[in-house]
Amino acid sequence: MISKYISHAIEKSSWIRKMFEAGNELKKIHGAENVFDLSLGNPILEPPDQFFDLLKKLSAEKESGKHRYMSNAGFIDVREKIVSYLSKNRILETTSDNVVMSCGAGGGLNVILRTILDQGDEVIVLTPFFSEYQFYVRNHHGKVVFAETDENFDINIENIEKKINKKTKAIMLNSPNNPTGKVYDEKKLKELIDFLNQKQKKFNNDIYLISDEPYREIVYDNINVPPVVSMYNNSFFVYSWSKSLAIPGNRIGYIAVNPNMNQVQEVVNGLIFCTRILGFVNAPALMQQIVGELLETTIDVGYYEKKKNYIYNKLTKAGYEMIKPEGTFYLFPKAPGNDDIKFVDRAKEEKVLIVPGEGFARKGHFRISYCTDDRTIENACERLARLV
Amino acid sequence: MISKYISHAIEKSSWIRKMFEAGNELKKIHGAENVFDLSLGNPILEPPDQFFDLLKKLSAEKESGKHRYMSNAGFIDVREKIVSYLSKNRILETTSDNVVMSCGAGGGLNVILRTILDQGDEVIVLTPFFSEYQFYVRNHHGKVVFAETDENFDINIENIEKKINKKTKAIMLNSPNNPTGKVYDEKKLKELIDFLNQKQKKFNNDIYLISDEPYREIVYDNINVPPVVSMYNNSFFVYSWSKSLAIPGNRIGYIAVNPNMNQVQEVVNGLIFCTRILGFVNAPALMQQIVGELLETTIDVGYYEKKKNYIYNKLTKAGYEMIKPEGTFYLFPKAPGNDDIKFVDRAKEEKVLIVPGEGFARKGHFRISYCTDDRTIENACERLARLV
Repeated sequence: MISKYISHAIEKSSWIRKMFEAGNELKKIHGAENVFDLSLGNPILEPPDQFFDLLKKLSAEKESGKHRYMSNAGFIDVREKIVSYLSKNRILETTSDNVVMSCGAGGGLNVILRTILDQGDEVIVLTPFFSEYQFYVRNHHGKVVFAETDENFDINIENIEKKINKKTKAIMLNSPNNPTGKVYDEKKLKELIDFLNQKQKKFNNDIYLISDEPYREIVYDNINVPPVVSMYNNSFFVYSWSKSLAIPGNRIGYIAVNPNMNQVQEVVNGLIFCTRILGFVNAPALMQQIVGELLETTIDVGYYEKKKNYIYNKLTKAGYEMIKPEGTFYLFPKAPGNDDIKFVDRAKEEKVLIVPGEGFARKGHFRISYCTDDRTIENACERLARLV
Repeated sequence: MISKYISHAIEKSSWIRKMFEAGNELKKIHGAENVFDLSLGNPILEPPDQFFDLLKKLSAEKESGKHRYMSNAGFIDVREKIVSYLSKNRILETTSDNVVMSCGAGGGLNVILRTILDQGDEVIVLTPFFSEYQFYVRNHHGKVVFAETDENFDINIENIEKKINKKTKAIMLNSPNNPTGKVYDEKKLKELIDFLNQKQKKFNNDIYLISDEPYREIVYDNINVPPVVSMYNNSFFVYSWSKSLAIPGNRIGYIAVNPNMNQVQEVVNGLIFCTRILGFVNAPALMQQIVGELLETTIDVGYYEKKKNYIYNKLTKAGYEMIKPEGTFYLFPKAPGNDDIKFVDRAKEEKVLIVPGEGFARKGHFRISYCTDDRTIENACERLARLV
């Protein structure tokens, strides 16, 4: 018999599986080309040419010694390049000692949580949220505490105030946000940070800020993603190349730590140790070498922007209400009729697959993922337009 | 402040770090070429040519769609090839549904333990043991229970009998064994399996057998590694290409499940779910594609066999007592004077770095790792010979 918790967690999340299965069933019945799937956050984009050029280059380096274990933190030269990049782009001034390569952002987040959490420690998560966070926190004996953002999906300090207490060990931010596309602005972040500093004093505790930023480059209208990691000492920056290089299957990212964090060396030692003991051991060696050479490369954001504009215009014109997303490849409109589960079912009848807001802890909405082809998007929009 | 457990675990394992630091210090003082390091299990061998050929081939496949997320279990075609390989080599008859690609063996073991363990469940580990196991078990709320093997490092049922009880959820095997080089023979394994079946009945519980076999191909004198996974229904086979293709940095392996396991589908769903929630998400995509084409390829085992024979002959001639290893790239001799910590210090004075048996829960021994160059080995042997 497997773990009771895992069995329960699978059971609880089985509605998502059922949804996917229903989608697959639909595709079988009607043909995949007649089902319009906007439910998946799995980019169909291919990695840029430079990625393949580097693969070829590395295929000729047979004596590099670079497929062995390296330091659990990752290759030092790659970490140094990241430090320069973070500095040049005014994200963070730090040193390579404070950078730990990770198996994507999912790996990085698990490593951080394993490092900082003791049983019963609480982690505040702003909703709507990327639903994997709840599992990540619970993996490491933590308790997830939800704090709702406001109607525009912006940080709401009052709601956090209600949830913060002396057991609060961390708060997780995800900006640009999955599922809302929201980017928190500098003013709001400063407000949050003042609040956190105040609470750290009050509780005489470290309250870590974990900023998960895999969509950092996927932003629109020249919007700036404020570098929250450099604004608050006790903060972690978590990055992944899954979106910016369209290589999510290859699992590569990193953690950068604010060098002014309390007991920073102990924390970083913890990250390195936990990278090892969680079985990651180190981030995939070949991918480390590749991303180290591609720090200035990203996929064409215009590709997503066109899709975003198309859907936003079509659906608002049809009568849908939604916040115009500032980043990511998601839209999070209000569900007509306000019952998101029912609405998702209605969409399914029209052979359009979307995810109900309930999956992100915000009912009355649904998530559209537009990292897919235009034909799917056009057909889906046409059908969704009929459902308002 | 980081987790109390992690802080404590780092503290407890800091003697290993101190040892490495002392080694690095020695190298700084005397020059790396004058320090003979037999402490690391990090092969200096490069991957075979076929590995690089495949990298080159894949660098030309720019529209493969294979750098995206795939099923959390891994690419189906790769898993099917593994199933054929396991069948052809009489390791296990199973189906691709029962194979989950992993981030090396370390990743696979964590995924299994997360799947099966509830808080307080016990896992029996045979000593001497690969010391990472204790962290893997504790990551997932389990309790490590040690059972000593006998003087020849063979399975000792009586010792297991003393430790098994109704809380026992699993037993971990590692054959060929790190650090001893022992391969358990079929007779002994059958004895163990009869015993486990008996205990399952008695406690009316599943007791899983987790067989960690990253050294499966690194064996000598045509010895056969019995396929224990096919001999016991409730068993997991954990594999990694770290040793057989000399690519430990690239983190690729898999879990194969005996199809007759109780509630096998629930267990496999658990493995897939835990691969996802632990942040692995999936095994690195590019490496999956590569190993799928290299199932019949291994590094030259003769390379290790020569080194093993050289050291074994030199040291036994000098008066060291040791079991002749049947596999891996380790030797585990008795420490002259019986105090392994003292002996390791004496070796360090001779500028030879080795690991004390205490690190593997068997005092009075030391581990030699010979996945290094001949010059290091020759010099180390010459110096060790003086210390008997």
